[in-house]
Amino acid sequence: MLTTHDASTNVAVLMEDIGRKARAAARPLALASAERKHAALVGMAQAVVRSEQAILSANALDMANGEDAGLTPSMMDRLKLDSGRIRAIADGIRAIAELKDPVGEVIAEWDRPNGLHIERVRTPLGIIGVIYESRPNVTADAGALCLKAGNAVILRGGSDSLHSSQAIHACLVEGLKSAGLPEDAIQLVPTTDRAAVGEMLTGLSGNLDVIVPRGGKSLVGRVQREARVPVFAHLEGICHLYIDKAADLDMAVKIAVNAKMRRTGICGSAETLLVDRAVKDTHLLPILEALDAAGCEIRAEDEVRAVFPNAKPAKDEDWTTEYLDAIISVKLVDGVSGAIDHIEHYSSHHTEAIVTDDAATAERFFNEIDSAILLHNASTQFADGGEFGMGAEIGIATGRMHARGPVGVEQLTSFKYRVRGQGQTRP
Amino acid sequence: MLTTHDASTNVAVLMEDIGRKARAAARPLALASAERKHAALVGMAQAVVRSEQAILSANALDMANGEDAGLTPSMMDRLKLDSGRIRAIADGIRAIAELKDPVGEVIAEWDRPNGLHIERVRTPLGIIGVIYESRPNVTADAGALCLKAGNAVILRGGSDSLHSSQAIHACLVEGLKSAGLPEDAIQLVPTTDRAAVGEMLTGLSGNLDVIVPRGGKSLVGRVQREARVPVFAHLEGICHLYIDKAADLDMAVKIAVNAKMRRTGICGSAETLLVDRAVKDTHLLPILEALDAAGCEIRAEDEVRAVFPNAKPAKDEDWTTEYLDAIISVKLVDGVSGAIDHIEHYSSHHTEAIVTDDAATAERFFNEIDSAILLHNASTQFADGGEFGMGAEIGIATGRMHARGPVGVEQLTSFKYRVRGQGQTRP
Repeated sequence: MLTTHDASTNVAVLMEDIGRKARAAARPLALASAERKHAALVGMAQAVVRSEQAILSANALDMANGEDAGLTPSMMDRLKLDSGRIRAIADGIRAIAELKDPVGEVIAEWDRPNGLHIERVRTPLGIIGVIYESRPNVTADAGALCLKAGNAVILRGGSDSLHSSQAIHACLVEGLKSAGLPEDAIQLVPTTDRAAVGEMLTGLSGNLDVIVPRGGKSLVGRVQREARVPVFAHLEGICHLYIDKAADLDMAVKIAVNAKMRRTGICGSAETLLVDRAVKDTHLLPILEALDAAGCEIRAEDEVRAVFPNAKPAKDEDWTTEYLDAIISVKLVDGVSGAIDHIEHYSSHHTEAIVTDDAATAERFFNEIDSAILLHNASTQFADGGEFGMGAEIGIATGRMHARGPVGVEQLTSFKYRVRGQGQTRP
Repeated sequence: MLTTHDASTNVAVLMEDIGRKARAAARPLALASAERKHAALVGMAQAVVRSEQAILSANALDMANGEDAGLTPSMMDRLKLDSGRIRAIADGIRAIAELKDPVGEVIAEWDRPNGLHIERVRTPLGIIGVIYESRPNVTADAGALCLKAGNAVILRGGSDSLHSSQAIHACLVEGLKSAGLPEDAIQLVPTTDRAAVGEMLTGLSGNLDVIVPRGGKSLVGRVQREARVPVFAHLEGICHLYIDKAADLDMAVKIAVNAKMRRTGICGSAETLLVDRAVKDTHLLPILEALDAAGCEIRAEDEVRAVFPNAKPAKDEDWTTEYLDAIISVKLVDGVSGAIDHIEHYSSHHTEAIVTDDAATAERFFNEIDSAILLHNASTQFADGGEFGMGAEIGIATGRMHARGPVGVEQLTSFKYRVRGQGQTRP
């Protein structure tokens, strides 16, 4: 039996080796043509369809283990695969295959007075590490999206879904091989030892360029605190919806219900509703009644509870809580200034929306709030790469470096400059 | 007298305080109009001109201390200010004032089928830390450039130039005040205690968003190794010039001499010359003779020395050395493939140039080399933000995250999304 020391040494050796293999794969991948990457992705989707039985068997094993381990029903649901979900995985890969290849795209170009022509052109980022929890479909989504942008990827899935992820990963490797791309372009960490995550956070001796954590707050928080390489992530989505005095009431009601209740478990779901004190007597009650009728629990200050006594009292921590559930905190504020002050204080800088017919008020909201996504007269639930037209996303970032908002295939690229001259020397 | 422990505690307290002040200044700064920032910059330039005597007196003190400390003549030259150099500092600030304000610029916009209009718009990055060595003019350049992009900045200059930097910093603060901007927008660390740098590398409890080191390899290396926040930098510029068999000989000679000898101490200076073995008998000798005539020492392999016996023998470390001097390493390679292999192995991914009349060969060089700047038929010495038309730069970055190549005012920004709707909810 290995001692703990030996085991962690072995994980370190294993992860360093994975890093080196990824680096070796990164160059041929960066130089691969759009056609070859497209063929690999189509091959992956076909392999997923062809391998349905193998994937379902692997998933059955994970489900049985999950049952034994006492996973909650919602965790079991995230883990579960069936024919429909496997078809959705294949369709997702095909959709990524059909995206425009970003590598080589000229993002900007200009001429200099001395005749030099300068182009800024997209290149792959390099090697992307994705650390995720129990959803096995992330294996396919993340692997395919990173490949489309010409990046090598190291996938580290949750232990609960290891067998399912391995079965899906085998299909991705089949697609890579069928197109003549290096199979190390998409590697799945083969151990559930948590030390593997720690190794990834160190950056694998320069063989990991960025980490994307996909999962709960404790995972994302650990990655953000400890990673020695850049991280694309959001710790939480404490999204605000502000109803201004110049809001159309019908629109406000419709957007409030959608922003909170369409899906309560996603990061773009509204967690706090701010209502302009000026329309306390006209707008507040109909909005709260609609939320209540939709099954939403309301937590509010006394001033709001005087209007809507069904509301529970809000505590301090309600303004900093991402419920991810059918609960909303509600507060009256003094106009857009009050809304901006509250949001700048409490927001996680993910997504905020304003409902108003006053264009100048919306401009102030847009200018003065520093969140990744700001919306005017639209639901916060549009905070999504697909809804932005990016085709697919690997997540949403709230940092201000490199990627911000939805992280799609373009955000997984870097760039370089190509300068063309006719013999110019610098005076 | 303070014990060491007390002293380092005090530096930590001081730096945390500087960080908090910067964060407090960052918001009003991010919201400041283009006109106000312009006025502040013009005010700074005027204050520099007006304060010439004070700056010269402070500089005289630094020069006297430098003399006592035994600084080398080149260090003394970097430190020295005179009327002309002070005018140049003021002119540099004025040039930055006249740049286009990047904040609020719409970088991209598009419509969605559901009627949402999406804009990606530039925002400031936040708080930038600049750690530099003895050039006092960096105080003005870096402070002004960060301000133009709406960022707060924490400047940590070298101890040799502390008094000069303080005198210049006082002018920057005058400009800020005259325009009604918070004076904490540009802070100069008031201590020469090296612990201050260590504190900055920790990120000042979230109050430092990016660090830009300006100086020698040991400073940059330490910052890159130890910083817990993103770094815009290049460790070194091991730039290559490749002369292809299809190169025009006159152009090759002219570019080789310029790339190496125009200024040998800058990061874009060529350090290695690669010549296609196919033109060994026609191109090699004239190029080496021209370099030799310009005063350049040549270090080469035996095959090259057989053609040009004046060359010294190259050692292994010559291929990884940034000479920053009138020395060049020279090697014969097998065509563009050989050049690409050598460059991908030895390059610092800063800048590489090819001379060829064959467009397809240039395309291969452009596609297959992953350096920040690639040039065709032009000198590597064009690797400079000013030459790229960016107006001013704070440095050149070789990382692939966020900023790459010259870091100008645009690269010191982030972005956010503004989404305009007419009541859209997500189905």
